[in-house]
Amino acid sequence: MLKLYSYFRSSAAYRVRIALALKGLPYETVPVHLLAGGGQQHAPAYRATNPQSLVPALQDGQGGAVLTQSLAIIEYLDEAHGGAPLLPADSLGRARVRALAQAVACDLHPLNNLRVLRYLKHELGVSDAQKDAWYAHWVGLGLSAIEDMLAASPATGRFCHGDAPGLADCCLVPQVFNARRFNCRVEDYPTIARITAACEELPAFQAAAPDRQPDAQ
Amino acid sequence: MLKLYSYFRSSAAYRVRIALALKGLPYETVPVHLLAGGGQQHAPAYRATNPQSLVPALQDGQGGAVLTQSLAIIEYLDEAHGGAPLLPADSLGRARVRALAQAVACDLHPLNNLRVLRYLKHELGVSDAQKDAWYAHWVGLGLSAIEDMLAASPATGRFCHGDAPGLADCCLVPQVFNARRFNCRVEDYPTIARITAACEELPAFQAAAPDRQPDAQ
Repeated sequence: MLKLYSYFRSSAAYRVRIALALKGLPYETVPVHLLAGGGQQHAPAYRATNPQSLVPALQDGQGGAVLTQSLAIIEYLDEAHGGAPLLPADSLGRARVRALAQAVACDLHPLNNLRVLRYLKHELGVSDAQKDAWYAHWVGLGLSAIEDMLAASPATGRFCHGDAPGLADCCLVPQVFNARRFNCRVEDYPTIARITAACEELPAFQAAAPDRQPDAQ
Repeated sequence: MLKLYSYFRSSAAYRVRIALALKGLPYETVPVHLLAGGGQQHAPAYRATNPQSLVPALQDGQGGAVLTQSLAIIEYLDEAHGGAPLLPADSLGRARVRALAQAVACDLHPLNNLRVLRYLKHELGVSDAQKDAWYAHWVGLGLSAIEDMLAASPATGRFCHGDAPGLADCCLVPQVFNARRFNCRVEDYPTIARITAACEELPAFQAAAPDRQPDAQ
């Protein structure tokens, strides 16, 4: 049985939950609360599981290897487990899907996640308005570039790449969820809004949503 | 001929230069100066090449597809071109190498790159000391987690994964270069320091170094 160390609101864990659901792989959720008691991700037991003290982590089988980093985990699931493929078969297509995923995971999300917003507030003492402007700046830059990448390419279909959901959609939907929480106008990005709506119709995306998780509050 | 849009000091471009050199692939450098004239990456012609206005981008063949995102580019080179493999053959090994690469590319570097440091200074008005503390905080968190990941695993060899350099080393060495520029004590991370030294002995890593680039200043 796969075991996923997850936090219901974590964008990175949400990506992996979507991938697991799209592939139809059953798994056990081990909640790691990022806020309770100063953050359970910093507890020694979890740090022994993942030295980065971040979620998600995935254990494949009792006593099996623990994998970290959401994109690496999703590619592993795609290579080592059955179910619907999450990456295209051709190298150029794979490069495009990975670039879209990384535009979220390397350039947008890292700047706007919980630990960074907390550093801005607690260490740099910025105001709430400045923190909101920081969030809006990076999410706006990131989503407008992704919109251009999607709108300009004939490879974009009902989903980010063709007419089946995959790795890029696993990253986009949690980012949009996050952006909405911070009052970003996602409808300003019509291709992103259209693809997100198509994803949200699918049971796999619904099952992976934060409010459907066992640790949701 | 491969064409690489690059900036000599960009960590992300540096990763791809190492990969190209390790694989022995000849390429043409197209310099994109990130500082000159407000940043050549924002010019309309470059934005048409890469809507993210970031380096690197790679064009494969005259009129061929333009690829973006350093990790996606390196995986593409590994899949579509010859030369030494940069990822292991087994899925667990690939997941480990990707996780190490992403620990740099998704969690460490995005917080400390040029555009972020400029935002801190110009938009949030933080002092130089606060900016330096920000840099030191994220590089310390990131490198110490990567040190633990490397030191704890029997899969670590002369390089990040076994005894041949690969994707994780392509990410680690530019990050260490960047950390040294900001006076981070890399010797505090003995496995990282040892692997970096082993990499720096190789001609491929030497050829990819910032001061060896045609646009170096």
